[in-house]
Amino acid sequence: MTIILFSGEMDKALAALSLATTAASMGKRVTLFFTFWGINAIRKPGPASGRGWMRKLLARMNRGGSENLPLSRFNMLGLGRWMMSKILRESRVASVGESLRLATEMGVRLVACTMSMGVMGIGKEDLIPEVEDFEGAASYLGEASKSGINLFI
Amino acid sequence: MTIILFSGEMDKALAALSLATTAASMGKRVTLFFTFWGINAIRKPGPASGRGWMRKLLARMNRGGSENLPLSRFNMLGLGRWMMSKILRESRVASVGESLRLATEMGVRLVACTMSMGVMGIGKEDLIPEVEDFEGAASYLGEASKSGINLFI
Amino acid sequence: MTIILFSGEMDKALAALSLATTAASMGKRVTLFFTFWGINAIRKPGPASGRGWMRKLLARMNRGGSENLPLSRFNMLGLGRWMMSKILRESRVASVGESLRLATEMGVRLVACTMSMGVMGIGKEDLIPEVEDFEGAASYLGEASKSGINLFI
Repeated sequence: MTIILFSGEMDKALAALSLATTAASMGKRVTLFFTFWGINAIRKPGPASGRGWMRKLLARMNRGGSENLPLSRFNMLGLGRWMMSKILRESRVASVGESLRLATEMGVRLVACTMSMGVMGIGKEDLIPEVEDFEGAASYLGEASKSGINLFI
Repeated sequence: MTIILFSGEMDKALAALSLATTAASMGKRVTLFFTFWGINAIRKPGPASGRGWMRKLLARMNRGGSENLPLSRFNMLGLGRWMMSKILRESRVASVGESLRLATEMGVRLVACTMSMGVMGIGKEDLIPEVEDFEGAASYLGEASKSGINLFI
Repeated sequence: MTIILFSGEMDKALAALSLATTAASMGKRVTLFFTFWGINAIRKPGPASGRGWMRKLLARMNRGGSENLPLSRFNMLGLGRWMMSKILRESRVASVGESLRLATEMGVRLVACTMSMGVMGIGKEDLIPEVEDFEGAASYLGEASKSGINLFI
């Protein structure tokens, strides 16, 4: 299975990770490609190291870190995210950060899209250590054509 | 074919249902999984029965019912939805509620995600009677690996 | 490979086109279906020719043209789009308009969804000349069931 995580929201990241870890537990080979806003889920907290004033401004607004992802609805300047995080913890659903660690332990391959990293001024040092692969669209397509399930989230 | 409807918007629900009913009319076996905000499309109107003040607050904001889904763009506090509904009716496109009934009549399987229901405090009694199956991610993945077309909407 | 572009945002259109052109360069047969807001990416700039005051109002708000697509995040009334376009140009990433021309040159089939065109009051004369095919959901499903990779963006 392959999943492209394009969106940078907590709820969509959790959907991607929950499918990925469940598939891995069923013995499937899973690759998660993080692209565009989705890269925020695998960024260390804090601004990215990009150059130029526009990339610096983008980096400042576009906060990374799995704990900083907004909700796709009812985010309410972070209040919705805080409430949803609490509800998820109560329901014993793993957070994005925990799910990323779990996924790598289960053998899910985490891949960062090199083109997006270049555009957004995000370097390898800005990403969490669980991400070890850096690839482009051709590499994704090679993998997807061998996979039974391909999703874009 | 399997479709995960994650989004809670009218336009995306219509896209999912229009693909599902067309596929069913072509003789394909179709399963529609409703998860996260997508569950709003199969909720009865009115607040969900969740416990705890946070779930109650979420239930109040996150209105269910196929007639209450916002547009993903130009919703304008409901004015856009109202206009789009009128335009769709003029164009003889079935509404979300009508499409759900049509889909079940055509044999499309409607499945509600049990994890999302738990997190959002939505019980079986909060869902429309057309939904008869309640399953998790493992069950979706089993079905998707046997399907030729798998979409995440 | 088939891709449904449902979303009308620049970043999502670029993701779809970048996957489509890369796949075509690898020798794959690719079809891009533009539906709902996604049709904006293949519209000529300016309002659509729809009839009735509601369609006219929708056409005025829902601006078409590949250069007018907003960002899905940080659009900031167009400032974010302007900045992202500049960053993309600096990074030598082709714009949506350029990618559409490149895609057709590489043999990617661009298809406009006839139902969406009807609903939104968009005629063939409102679309760029690169779009030569006008089809419905059944035609998409026929193609998707023969494809190894099917994405909904």
